[in-house]
Parts: sequence; structure tokens; C-alpha cells
Amino acid sequence: MKIGVPKEILNNENRVAMTPPGVSMMVQKGHEVWVEKGAGIGSGFSDAFYEEMGAVIKETPEEVWAADLVLKIKEPTRDEYQFFREGLILFTYLHLAASDELTDQLLTNKVTAIGYETVQPSEGVLPLLMPMSEVAGRMAVQLGARYLEKQSGGKGILLGAVPGVNKGNVVVIGGGVVGSNAARMALGLGANVTLLDVNQQRLTELSERFGSELQTLMSNSYNLEKVLPQADFVIGEVLLP
Amino acid sequence: MKIGVPKEILNNENRVAMTPPGVSMMVQKGHEVWVEKGAGIGSGFSDAFYEEMGAVIKETPEEVWAADLVLKIKEPTRDEYQFFREGLILFTYLHLAASDELTDQLLTNKVTAIGYETVQPSEGVLPLLMPMSEVAGRMAVQLGARYLEKQSGGKGILLGAVPGVNKGNVVVIGGGVVGSNAARMALGLGANVTLLDVNQQRLTELSERFGSELQTLMSNSYNLEKVLPQADFVIGEVLLP
Amino acid sequence: MKIGVPKEILNNENRVAMTPPGVSMMVQKGHEVWVEKGAGIGSGFSDAFYEEMGAVIKETPEEVWAADLVLKIKEPTRDEYQFFREGLILFTYLHLAASDELTDQLLTNKVTAIGYETVQPSEGVLPLLMPMSEVAGRMAVQLGARYLEKQSGGKGILLGAVPGVNKGNVVVIGGGVVGSNAARMALGLGANVTLLDVNQQRLTELSERFGSELQTLMSNSYNLEKVLPQADFVIGEVLLP
Amino acid sequence: MKIGVPKEILNNENRVAMTPPGVSMMVQKGHEVWVEKGAGIGSGFSDAFYEEMGAVIKETPEEVWAADLVLKIKEPTRDEYQFFREGLILFTYLHLAASDELTDQLLTNKVTAIGYETVQPSEGVLPLLMPMSEVAGRMAVQLGARYLEKQSGGKGILLGAVPGVNKGNVVVIGGGVVGSNAARMALGLGANVTLLDVNQQRLTELSERFGSELQTLMSNSYNLEKVLPQADFVIGEVLLP
Amino acid sequence: MKIGVPKEILNNENRVAMTPPGVSMMVQKGHEVWVEKGAGIGSGFSDAFYEEMGAVIKETPEEVWAADLVLKIKEPTRDEYQFFREGLILFTYLHLAASDELTDQLLTNKVTAIGYETVQPSEGVLPLLMPMSEVAGRMAVQLGARYLEKQSGGKGILLGAVPGVNKGNVVVIGGGVVGSNAARMALGLGANVTLLDVNQQRLTELSERFGSELQTLMSNSYNLEKVLPQADFVIGEVLLP
Amino acid sequence: MKIGVPKEILNNENRVAMTPPGVSMMVQKGHEVWVEKGAGIGSGFSDAFYEEMGAVIKETPEEVWAADLVLKIKEPTRDEYQFFREGLILFTYLHLAASDELTDQLLTNKVTAIGYETVQPSEGVLPLLMPMSEVAGRMAVQLGARYLEKQSGGKGILLGAVPGVNKGNVVVIGGGVVGSNAARMALGLGANVTLLDVNQQRLTELSERFGSELQTLMSNSYNLEKVLPQADFVIGEVLLP
Repeated sequence: MKIGVPKEILNNENRVAMTPPGVSMMVQKGHEVWVEKGAGIGSGFSDAFYEEMGAVIKETPEEVWAADLVLKIKEPTRDEYQFFREGLILFTYLHLAASDELTDQLLTNKVTAIGYETVQPSEGVLPLLMPMSEVAGRMAVQLGARYLEKQSGGKGILLGAVPGVNKGNVVVIGGGVVGSNAARMALGLGANVTLLDVNQQRLTELSERFGSELQTLMSNSYNLEKVLPQADFVIGEVLLP
Repeated sequence: MKIGVPKEILNNENRVAMTPPGVSMMVQKGHEVWVEKGAGIGSGFSDAFYEEMGAVIKETPEEVWAADLVLKIKEPTRDEYQFFREGLILFTYLHLAASDELTDQLLTNKVTAIGYETVQPSEGVLPLLMPMSEVAGRMAVQLGARYLEKQSGGKGILLGAVPGVNKGNVVVIGGGVVGSNAARMALGLGANVTLLDVNQQRLTELSERFGSELQTLMSNSYNLEKVLPQADFVIGEVLLP
Repeated sequence: MKIGVPKEILNNENRVAMTPPGVSMMVQKGHEVWVEKGAGIGSGFSDAFYEEMGAVIKETPEEVWAADLVLKIKEPTRDEYQFFREGLILFTYLHLAASDELTDQLLTNKVTAIGYETVQPSEGVLPLLMPMSEVAGRMAVQLGARYLEKQSGGKGILLGAVPGVNKGNVVVIGGGVVGSNAARMALGLGANVTLLDVNQQRLTELSERFGSELQTLMSNSYNLEKVLPQADFVIGEVLLP
Repeated sequence: MKIGVPKEILNNENRVAMTPPGVSMMVQKGHEVWVEKGAGIGSGFSDAFYEEMGAVIKETPEEVWAADLVLKIKEPTRDEYQFFREGLILFTYLHLAASDELTDQLLTNKVTAIGYETVQPSEGVLPLLMPMSEVAGRMAVQLGARYLEKQSGGKGILLGAVPGVNKGNVVVIGGGVVGSNAARMALGLGANVTLLDVNQQRLTELSERFGSELQTLMSNSYNLEKVLPQADFVIGEVLLP
Repeated sequence: MKIGVPKEILNNENRVAMTPPGVSMMVQKGHEVWVEKGAGIGSGFSDAFYEEMGAVIKETPEEVWAADLVLKIKEPTRDEYQFFREGLILFTYLHLAASDELTDQLLTNKVTAIGYETVQPSEGVLPLLMPMSEVAGRMAVQLGARYLEKQSGGKGILLGAVPGVNKGNVVVIGGGVVGSNAARMALGLGANVTLLDVNQQRLTELSERFGSELQTLMSNSYNLEKVLPQADFVIGEVLLP
Repeated sequence: MKIGVPKEILNNENRVAMTPPGVSMMVQKGHEVWVEKGAGIGSGFSDAFYEEMGAVIKETPEEVWAADLVLKIKEPTRDEYQFFREGLILFTYLHLAASDELTDQLLTNKVTAIGYETVQPSEGVLPLLMPMSEVAGRMAVQLGARYLEKQSGGKGILLGAVPGVNKGNVVVIGGGVVGSNAARMALGLGANVTLLDVNQQRLTELSERFGSELQTLMSNSYNLEKVLPQADFVIGEVLLP
């Protein structure tokens, strides 16, 4: 099969749909992989690295979109609708609910499109969202810690404080992948962490994983009103594509 | 040397100055150990066990106090002054500051008396107070936990709570042997623990030992006024004989 | 819907079926909640707190039982059979197997009764028994520790001992919610803990969660005969309502 | 004694020499504390808070410097030399080695000046540098983590990575207060941490404290040449005032 | 039912299909257990111990194979085919795929044979292979550590090194029961451990269990080529009977 | 200064007195380092590596011993006495108490000899014995684990067992560098570890470092008689050169 990996168009989108080692795995299985020139730059993968792993570098999006299967990160933009055609398999984050236009274009052009966000090998497991959520939860703490710094305009609080000083309070709302990863990082930095969730079963699991260092609380308006005013920052879990 | 171990006289004093294995160590070094009948009962050591380890069981205090060296737990009571005599070496908790009478009796009778509480092999190290303090710190948490139970008249709080519920707050004032042992047990039960001390260096040591699970705070009136009203119970470190 | 929360009648039953924040959640969803005067006292919830969260305080059980849905803790007593009527939904611990009389009364009066102990969202998960079991397992260790104290008539053993002294031995029979929570607390207090279960898979899970600090053993008569005589106390897991 | 706390003059110096609770401690001991208007703003302490704790707020530096003892953070600037006089006790970071001019001014005016950086209650212990170093070590990791982010111009590396991805490599040169605090934070974020020091004894201490999660290495040119090229960022310990 | 436990015939096969406590459990349930003389010697179980637990010791394999149910460890050898007969239930590791001859013999003689390796109470759970795999994973590290010793012809590397020296690198390929147990032991010895698996979900589970001490990596040829040359030893997970 | 590093003569002595990076440090400080051909082979350091780091490779012991300072591992043998001369500084393990002959030779020839085992920068600190003791303690557990294996003639015990099976018992006598390192490794392998020492202060330190996973016991004949019969293996701390 011919697999195409176009360069992402959106500003600040540094991700790329396939890493060079991923290319190597596909090539070993007998596929041909076409990568658009510079597609990996934002992620630190040079064209040379892709070639070394067996990819063919293509100069233009047209060439890459001519593949049987196109792998992307972001939902296609208007500039990319022109490449839609019957027989094309498109595998990317789609978020169709948010765009009637995109849905129409895919239907009209008879593209076989699969949204990463809908792949569910078993009930409740979303393997293509999970790594994004893991990154999101971990980055959230790093960003929170930064915006508490004086020079970023914050209160001048160090999450883990130093001996003899009050630790920062981090409140995490939701104990899913984002929330549990955020809790892990915030505990790692030495903060005082309270995690709320509406699912008692999940609170028990997280309590077993993190031990008594993590304060778990049933998420209800009463508890939220108690903990939010004390929080130095709050991380609310939402599904991120 | 003849070593005498009298039975403690005070009510509820279950301790005994030498355990049967301790007797064995002394006997191996060539000493003779005389233990008063029933001296070890309160600690669960039978006369038979003492005999097996090499002690001679004596029927009366008179016989035991006739030894060269007498080992006790509590400071001697008036009933025991009669046994004071020149040449006697007495090794026990003395607390002379609290009793002019005892001091006079020892001086008048020319007893060589050494208080456990004064033995200091190097600056700041009190090896004969330490185990008492370790027990005190650990027991304090156990007692505190009990008096939070509903049936003991408490608020019905479980220190470590269960997932989804606020943990109990334990405040420990003083980070010495008692305080650090109390902190260890309270953390072990899953409580939220704040320890205050006036010594920044000590807070750093405890912070390194317990990690970020322990909140250390500089002990000053401002911090105390902040944490005490939130505490479910407070452990104040004092030296215990 | 009108929801009634009567005061529990049994002696020493301090629990209440709904907390004030729980009331708030129901009220936010458009329900009306009637709480019997003083129903929350045993749990530390004042009538004022219930009112603040949106409940209506009722003077008599009659008024509360007039609700569409009645939430209780304990199975109804004979004094409460008078309130049974067609259309009433009763949600409480029922334990019907233990009382033909109660079963007859419910059937005769056509009450829709749901036992907490039977709610099972998925195979083997009993969410309304779990928190009771968590509390039971944790409290069991606290009680065991107390009854080893000299002044409670015990052997004078401190579970975690102090350095240089043998730790207490705790044997936990059964690795379910009660047993695993008991193991956690006993390890937290520094005891030597052996947990037995007939399910090898469960032993592996607990071994992964607690690490090598916990000795897991296959539960059979041979192993029990080996470990029980060494135990300072034994916690046997049974389902507690 | 009258104690003066001037507002720091240097840009971006947000610290203040005494916190409001510190004022309270001094006042309780019978001293009078004069704080310059706005001195605590950068640290989040309002004048009102200082007053509540017993301080007297003064409008001008002149008034504050008229105290018997002046507490500052930074070494005095030329604007402050005018306040030097015989009898004044000045307690601040001085760093005299770096400024002949300041040294001369202090000598000429017969000021009794004590540098925080020289206070050494016992060999090798610098209590007034330690908290600065703790903050420095912990902040260093937070800053390093930030500058590895893509949007800060970094390589787009998350120190603790996510499962399945290589963790970031942090190299810490020097195992003193700064280095050990940096190591603690970097490990907390899940990084791969190598700490080098020339003191074998210190490496053993840190190895005991952090366990096998920390790679300690003898600091020599060979080892440095091996680990530096692999590092995603490097923290070099220097004493920070 | 009569249950027979023959002595294993293969060299160096020290295992036995039923322990003495296992015999006791069967006898309590009303079964009769016949154990071949010396069957437990390799595992340290004397005939006397079996008898004490209720077994009957038999002199010859003929007698034991006359039971209704025969429990073994290894697949039957040619010497044992003579005991096959209609009505016999044989429970052992069978590995039929590897031997047409054995399959034919079982079919021809109408033996009801169940392979331990095929018992699967639920999807993916192989309880009779798991303990073998746990042992295999843990032993693998012990063996690896040995063969790194100088006197075993190795490089003279101690996995956990000592402070100031590089730790040994252990690479574990596969994160199943063998791999995760190997990782646990290698981390316990203080090694630097990298575990690769093709299943991202599994890497996340192991990352949660072991924390950041374990480096997990997606198993692909690129990553393998990176980590294998650095490895001091490699443990590859394969299913072991 | 000229520094000579001879090849060790004793069988199975694989150590060498200076590593190539050590050579580099000396050369950077202006010294000249002469290494005997093949001196590093046993430790995995080639002559080429020494040369790369700045050493001069010498063909014979005569040439190396002509240096101002000679660094060795083992005490000199009779074959090496011929190189003794006035002015020579010899730095190695000496153990003079064990050899009058060596002592005489050094005195007669006026060699300035310093035994590694006597270097004590401060009371109780023996930096040149410590790494040997660390290795000894860690290796001891590895060897003990091996000799419990069936194929090494042992009882067939895996120290950390597997879930459901009794862990192995390791007894460590002495809590110095050897003993504490042995305890660390044995705990890492999942064994049940009891450490005995006569110093209560040291037991407290180790108890704080290892937590409640380690059973510490006062070392006396009574306790030894209790624990030794239960031990699967015993590690006795002795100072190793």
C-alpha cells in the first residue's frame, strides 16, 4: 500500500502523523511511504532521517495526497478538500461534529475517513487519544508552575516550596488520563494535590495507585466550593485531540 | 559485679530495667544478676525466663538492693531510701531537679547515682531517652486516632479516611525524636501531617527523610494560629522519661 | 421527586443516608429533600447545614416517610412497617435473607424496595458495600492495635515496634476490599503483614500493588496453621453492611 | 531594639528581609520594627499585614535607616551609603570581595556589618544561604523544563516523557544544596538524572537518600565528556546569594 | 476420587505436581491422594510430609497411574504411554503441537487430557502458566547478574553498581508476566532498566506500576537498535511451560 | 611527580590502582603516570585507553616501580621487595599487622608507605575501604541468592519468592557499610530481611533509611539464637580490604 504523510498546514502544529521509526515498520511490512518535504521538522525529524528509515520524500502535497492511505494530525482544511477522491483512505483527527462542511466534502467525494478520536478497540479505551491526554496532563502542571512564578506575573509560589514553607495547592478536576497524569506530575514537584471525580470507583483506583499522598474527593458543588478558593491553580480535565 | 533488678513499685509501671536477654549478656561477661520475684511480669517476662537466661530470682527487695549495682526504671520512692548506702551504684531515671528530698538522701548516704536522662555520649545524643521518645511518638498517634473514633467520644474521623473523603489533619509541634516518630506513624495511617519546628536545619532533614508527603513549617505564632484550628489532633513534643 | 431521609432508630447507628452536599446535588437536579430533625447529628451534620444545602427539615418520621423515595441506612424495624405503602420506593440495606417478616411486609404492602447490598453495576462490583468495607478494613487495624496495648489488657505490643525490637505480626485472611485496606493500614503502622487468599490472581495483584513489603500466601489449612500461632492479631474479611 | 526593614531598591528584587510573621516574633520579644512603605509588595505582603503583626510603617528610607539594626537583602547601593554611621548594625548579603568601595564605606563610617553569607554556626553549615540554594535548585529544573518546550524555542521534550518514549536527560554537576534539590525535582518530573560530584562520601549520601533512581557519578573530565553530550539540560551548582 | 501424583522422570525436573498442603486440601474434600515414593524430593518435600498431610505413598509408577486423575508436570514420555487407558484423566503440561506421537497416543487410548497451558478462565488469563513465568522473569535477572560477574567470565559489572559508578543496563523485551517480573527484580538490584513492548496500553500500565524508575519504550526495530548495543544483558520474554 | 601503576601479581586480582579517567585527572594536574603493560586488563581497561588518557605504558615492573609514587592494590609480595628504596612513596592496602616481614622490609628500606585501610579524614570515616565494603555487601546477596538455587546445590529458594509463596529469610549481622548495602540488595530482591547490630543509634538510622521493610534487632545471643535457625542465608559484616 502507498501511505502518504503530508506536512501539517496549521500554525504552531509541530506534530507529524508518522515518525521515521514508524516509517521503518511500515516499509518492513512491504508498504511504500511518501513523506512531504519538511513534514517532520517541527518534531525534530529531518528529511534525511525519514529517507534513512525507508521513506520517499515528496516535494508537494499533491504527490503525497495521491497515496492510497493518507495519515494526518489535524482535520483537513479547505485547502486540502481538493485532494479528496473516491478510494482515498484518510486517517486523522476529524471532529466531524464541529464541521458540517468537512462532513459534506468527505461524503460527496466518497472518502473513507476514520477519525483517530473514534478508534475504540474495547469499551472506554481510546488509544489514539490517550498519548495526547498524557502529554496534556503533564504539560498542564509545567505551565501552571510557570504561571505561578513572579516573573511570569504569578504570586511567586514554588509548587513544592522549600522546607518550612507551605506547599502550593493544586486542584485537579477529573481523574481520567489527563487528570491522573497531572496529579502525578504535581505530586512529583512536591505540591499538595486534591483530585475530584464523580466516580467513586475511579477515586479508589487512583488512591491505590498514588497512596495517601493524593487527596481524592467526591466531585460535587460543596467540595468544589471548599477546595477551589484554596487552589493556587486548577487543572480541569477535558478531552484534547 | 553483682547487679540487682528490683520490681518497680509504682502503679501501672509495667517496665523492668533489664530484659532476660540483657541478663544473658551480663552473665556471659561474668556478672551475677539478681532479679526480684515478679519484676518482669508487667513486661511479659516470667521468672522462669530470667532464670533460663542466667538470673538468680530473689524473694525480697532487700536482697536485690544488696547488689553492687542496682538498675531501676523510676526514681526511688521513700520506701526505697532505706536501701541507700555508701558504695551502692544506682542507675535509673532520677529527675533530681524535681525532688530536693531524693537529692539529699542520695548525697547523705553517699550513693553513686547516675540518671539515665543525663547520659550523653556525644553532644545532643541521649540514647537512654530515645527509645522512650520513639515509643511516645508512635503511641501518641495511636491514641489520637482512637480518640477521634465516635465510640471514644470523638468526631468520628478516620485519619486516612477512605477514597473520596477528606483525610484527618494531624499537627506535630517539634521535630525531635517524639515528633518525627509521630509524623511517621500519622503518615503511615494516611493522615495529612504538618510538622512545625523552630530549627530550619531540622525541617530540611525531615523533609529529606519523609519527602513531600510531610508539610514542614517554621514554628512561629503566625503559622501555629493558621494550622491549629484545622487540626483534628495535635501532638506536642516534650521529653518523656 | 420528593426524597425522604429519616433519622436512624437503632442505638449506636450514627450514620445518615444522605450528607448535606448530597442534598445539594439532588436539589440542583430539581428534587425536594425532606430530612428528619436531628437525622445527621450522629455524623456531625446539623439541621442548619442541611437547610443551607436546600433540605426541608421535618419534625416527625411520618412526614419524612410520606416522600416518594425514602433513603435509609439500616433495614426498617417493626416501628417503621406502618409507613409501608404501595408506590413507596425504599432504598436501604435490606438483608432480606435474614428476615422473613420484613420480606412479607414489603411484599404485602407492595413497596418497591432496593437493597444497597444488591446493587451491582457490573460483575463483582458492589459500589454501595465498598466504602463500608474500606472503613471496616482500616478500622480493624486501629482496633487491633489498641487491644495490643497494655492498658487495654493486651500484650503491650506496638505494631511497628521501635528500632531494634520485633515488629508485631498481623495476619489478614482474605484479600478483598476489607483485607487489602487492612493490609494497607497495618503496613502503614510498620507491622509485619501476611495476607492469605485462595485466589492466586488476587495475590498477584496485591503483590504488585504493595510490593515486597507484603507477604502473600495461598490460603490453605497448612499455611493457616503455620501463620496463625505467630500472629499478634488476625483480621478475617467478611462482608459488612 | 529598633529594627529597620527598608524597601529593596534593585529592579526585580522582590524579596524583603523580614516577613510579617517574623515581625510578630520580634515584637513579642520586645523589639520595635519599622518597615518602609511597600517593602513587602514584591513578596505579596501588604503594609496592612505588617501593621497587623505589629510593625510600624515608615514613609521614607531615612526613617527606616535610623533604626539600631537594619535588615536588608541585597548589598547597599551608593544611594544608601548616606545612611551609614557609627553604631549602625547592618545585616544583609554583603559580598565584600566584589566591592572595594562598599568595604571602604563601611569601614570609614564604622558600621557593624554582618554578611548573611558568612554566618556559619558550625563547620560547613550556611543557614542563610541554604534556603536560597534550595529555591535555586528547584527553580532551575522548572526553568530547564520550560526551555525544552517547543514554544520556548526548545527541542519539544517533556522531561518525564510519556510511556513508550525516551525520558529527558538531566545532568546535575555538584551535589550540594542546589544540586540535590535540583535532582529531587528532576526525578519528581520523571527525568533520567545523573549527578556528578568530586566527593565520594557525598555521592554515597545522595545515593542513600534517592535510591537507585539517581545515577551518581564521580565528577572527572572523562565522565563529564561522556554525559554532557547526552544531556537535554545541565544544572551546575554555584552558590547563589 | 483417586488422585495420582507420579515422580517426574526427566533429568533436572525437580518440580512435583502437588505439594503436601495441596494433598491436605484434596483429602479434606474427600479425595484419596497417591504419591509415588520420592516424588517430592526434588522440591524438598519428604514422603513423611506427604503422609502427614494425608497422602498414601506408592512404591511404583504403575500403582500411581491407576488413579482416576493423574497430575504431572511434564508431558508424558514414551515410558509412560503404557499407562494410558480409557477413563484416565490426565492433567499436566501437554504441548501437543510439538508432538504428533503423544497426540496420537492420547487419542488412541481415549485419555481425557487437559494441558495446563490451555486453562483460561477468562480471555488472556493463563493461571497455570503465570507462576512459571513469574519465576522465569525473576530467575532471569539473577542469572544475568551472575554472568556479569568476573568469575563467571563476565565483564565484572555489578547491576546496581556502587555510588559514583555507572549502573548496569538491562533491556527487557516484552512486558508480559516474565518481562514485568524481570523488570521488578532488575530495578530492585538497582539496574538501569528499559522495557520494550509493542502494546502502548501495556506500557502505560507498567509505567503506572513502576513509576519513572522504569524506562518504557515502544518496541520497534529503531528503538531496539538504539538500546541493544548499550545493554549489559537482555531478557526476552517467551512463554515458558 | 612521576606516578607508577604496576600490574597486580596475585591470581584473580583483577583490580588496578588507577582507572584511565583517574590518569587523566593526574595528568591534568601536571603529573606523569606510568602504567605497566596490561595492568588494566582484568578491569576491562586496555593499554590504548590508558594512553588515550595520557598515561605512558611501560613494559616491565622495574620501570614502573622507578616512579616517585607507586599505587597498588594488594600489599607487596616478596617479588616486589626488590623495588623498595629510600624516597619511594608506596600507597596501597598494607595490612602490616599480618606480616612482620613486610613491615621490616619497608622500615629497613626506608619506604614511605601509606596503607589505604588507615586513611581516616575524620573519626570513623574510612573512604578507601568504603567502596570495597559496598561492593562486598552487594555481591554477598548476589552470591547468597545463587547458592540457594537448586542447580547450585541449594534448597531451591528464590529470595523474593512469587506471590503466594514464603519469601526467603536473610539475616545480616552488623549494620555498617557491608551490612547496610547487603540489606539494600536483599530488600531489592524482595527477601525478608533482619539486620542485627549492637549499636541502638545505628539501628535507628537504618530504620529511618529503609523504613518498616527492614526488621532491625539488637544483636545479642538471645536474638541471634532466635533468628539464625530461620535464616536461608546469613551475611556477617567483616571489614574487607
